[in-house]
Amino acid sequence: MSNINLYDFIDDIQDFPKKGILFRDISPLLEDRDAFKLLISKMIQEIKNYKIDIIAGIDSRGFLFSSLLAHQLNIGSIMIRKPNKLPGNIIEKKYELEYGSSTLSVQKKRNLNKKNLLIIDDLLATGGTLKCAEELISEVGGKVVLTIVAIELNSLKGRRKIQSDVFSVLSYD
Amino acid sequence: MSNINLYDFIDDIQDFPKKGILFRDISPLLEDRDAFKLLISKMIQEIKNYKIDIIAGIDSRGFLFSSLLAHQLNIGSIMIRKPNKLPGNIIEKKYELEYGSSTLSVQKKRNLNKKNLLIIDDLLATGGTLKCAEELISEVGGKVVLTIVAIELNSLKGRRKIQSDVFSVLSYD
Repeated sequence: MSNINLYDFIDDIQDFPKKGILFRDISPLLEDRDAFKLLISKMIQEIKNYKIDIIAGIDSRGFLFSSLLAHQLNIGSIMIRKPNKLPGNIIEKKYELEYGSSTLSVQKKRNLNKKNLLIIDDLLATGGTLKCAEELISEVGGKVVLTIVAIELNSLKGRRKIQSDVFSVLSYD
Repeated sequence: MSNINLYDFIDDIQDFPKKGILFRDISPLLEDRDAFKLLISKMIQEIKNYKIDIIAGIDSRGFLFSSLLAHQLNIGSIMIRKPNKLPGNIIEKKYELEYGSSTLSVQKKRNLNKKNLLIIDDLLATGGTLKCAEELISEVGGKVVLTIVAIELNSLKGRRKIQSDVFSVLSYD
């Protein structure tokens, strides 16, 4: 397993989701059991430096990691979701996209008050989504102590927008 | 852990996503580490009766289970996604919704030919989505041998639309 280069399991796809964007696709990583196990083990190794009470996954590729890491670490997880996806009473927060804006939401019933949270997503690009998620957690009384992504796009400097520690397994300049 | 009643961890939410629908929400199950562990162990117990090569998760709550189960079982996973979500060359299949239609897609690059697949989602309602997913896998040469959901709504008879064996951990009449 030590011979695995995780970068070999990222597909570079030109012009997705729109012209001019080079999309970093984690699909080959998910498909290969050994590469995926290595990715998860690197995330867990980092998480063990913190005291995390609960993990929040960002809709929707964050869900590929949130429940899995929570299961491995013997804690629970919650979903942070896009508009009109979470049932019941929710708290929403707006964030700006390249064109227009969107919102993230979390259910009021989830017990996050005074909890230490890890937020996880597959990708850190401009940081707008993860910044919004962090502020949303803060508004319901939780504290984000660590943000983990599988892939960070360094040139977009998204890390600067995030208050918590940030750990990325893979990064591109 | 044996005293846990998983039904206690499903929230019933009236009129979501639209009036007249009683939504069964797995959020409390995700949040409780012991209940979630029990849910996952019941899924794994069932999967062990089959020879599964790879797990396909349905966008997006299926992702909460697909990569986790794959990790536990030492196999890989793939994503079956809604329109405009998967990069690269894809194969799409249309399915009917209550009003209108949608599509599911899978990447052509994923190696599913002659593989035995498990499809997983959180909920089996009318079965339209899971039927479409099964046919999509079949079109790329894979064989769905088992479909697992956390929750089945028996009265909607979705199970009848699915060719593979179906296992639901929780069910409602």
